[in-house]
Amino acid sequence: MRVPFIKMHGLGNDFVVLDARVDDVPELTGETVRRLADRFTGIGCDQLILLAPSADADFAMRIFNHDGGEVGACGNATRAVAMLHGKEARIATAGGLLLASPTQGGASVDMGVPRFDWEAIPLAYPMDTLSMPVAWDMLENPGAVNVGNPHVIFFADDTDAVPLDRLGPEIENDPLFPERVNVNVATIVAPDHIRLRVWERGAGLTLACGTGACATAVHAMRRRLVEPKVTVTLPGGDLRIEWSEGGSIRMTGPATESFRGSFEWADYA
Amino acid sequence: MRVPFIKMHGLGNDFVVLDARVDDVPELTGETVRRLADRFTGIGCDQLILLAPSADADFAMRIFNHDGGEVGACGNATRAVAMLHGKEARIATAGGLLLASPTQGGASVDMGVPRFDWEAIPLAYPMDTLSMPVAWDMLENPGAVNVGNPHVIFFADDTDAVPLDRLGPEIENDPLFPERVNVNVATIVAPDHIRLRVWERGAGLTLACGTGACATAVHAMRRRLVEPKVTVTLPGGDLRIEWSEGGSIRMTGPATESFRGSFEWADYA
Repeated sequence: MRVPFIKMHGLGNDFVVLDARVDDVPELTGETVRRLADRFTGIGCDQLILLAPSADADFAMRIFNHDGGEVGACGNATRAVAMLHGKEARIATAGGLLLASPTQGGASVDMGVPRFDWEAIPLAYPMDTLSMPVAWDMLENPGAVNVGNPHVIFFADDTDAVPLDRLGPEIENDPLFPERVNVNVATIVAPDHIRLRVWERGAGLTLACGTGACATAVHAMRRRLVEPKVTVTLPGGDLRIEWSEGGSIRMTGPATESFRGSFEWADYA
Repeated sequence: MRVPFIKMHGLGNDFVVLDARVDDVPELTGETVRRLADRFTGIGCDQLILLAPSADADFAMRIFNHDGGEVGACGNATRAVAMLHGKEARIATAGGLLLASPTQGGASVDMGVPRFDWEAIPLAYPMDTLSMPVAWDMLENPGAVNVGNPHVIFFADDTDAVPLDRLGPEIENDPLFPERVNVNVATIVAPDHIRLRVWERGAGLTLACGTGACATAVHAMRRRLVEPKVTVTLPGGDLRIEWSEGGSIRMTGPATESFRGSFEWADYA
């Protein structure tokens, strides 16, 4: 059987979107996700997105990393899916309910209320997540935020000078983070501007991580390093993040459809 | 306007195939090829293949590397296109006329008669192409063969131990090769078995280079290091190469369709 898909990206973070609301999509295994995500012999993507009907929302979105593992949140994918939907939507995800509206060339997404208590990140033991007394090489004194998935945030004078390809996997897999962690390294450029690189849990260095931009902006706001509205510049482009204490995070940015197609399910099962 | 395409690969060397015989395909620019070949924001491929009508053959095949440049030959793409065609075909390419027949899971291609004279490679000045008195680091005394595109072939005790990511671009761009060159590093495993890695001109390290397998097998046969029928193991898998002095090269191996789709031309123009 042939299964249709839509290939999209948000700031170069790319997705294969399968829509089980309208198409017949068999149960996904980790092996099928890995084969579809292969950039040479499959369709190729950072994440595979599965849309499905939901009793509690307009639809449900499941997110699988290219390594086959399922994750709770992906900000860039949420914008892409919101753009596809074409109108305001309540989207059920493993990380919670998200509200999204399409904008010109992208979407604006209510990413929910961030959590800061150590058990919610989760950390392995109690710690102040606003100022953590830990260090890896030149990266020290981070903060931690859960925005549907776990993030640790470091500040550096020059984010490009940090060997994130080496330190990222080390921190991601540190026992301090029992569910592993997304590793953000940020530079405060101005009170309304952050530069950011992210080592994504299960995906490695990517061009843009939407939840990383949210977690980093919120952490910088809690530390009073930036204003409540900030532009986050990732290698793939800019996101606009807004937040105030106690509220939910609003993320606004582009999403793009690259192409549409279909594949033979048996070739990837 | 939407343009249909087929995504294929031969041993992991992957192609976007556009078929101007049946679809309306506007003139391709280097910029459009580069955008379509981008693995995050485009369709993603090593080479873009354009099929077109031909007065002198069953059809014509043009080959563009992901950097936008047009090249004369691609063995893996020829197998893929032969499989698509579904029956014996005479294919006109910039590197000459190729004869191909589909086989179970792939195709067998007559890759034409190899050329060995220095002007045909081309080299910048006269030299014996069976044993060239030149060296780059630990790579020395290569041979050169043109099989529709230019190849230089080195032998090494362990092809995996050669830093081809560093030496490949250096040799590719050496003034000895006025049209640049594909760089092959081969290990003779047995009289019927060669292991091979290839730095492809304009494409870098790839999982498999069909013309590299042909050029390397022919050169090893001329040096009497292997028999006239040999298996060439590339990182992406095996090809079978047959040749006898004065004749044309026969290459047999797999080809696979990954998926089909269409894109909006204006997004890539």
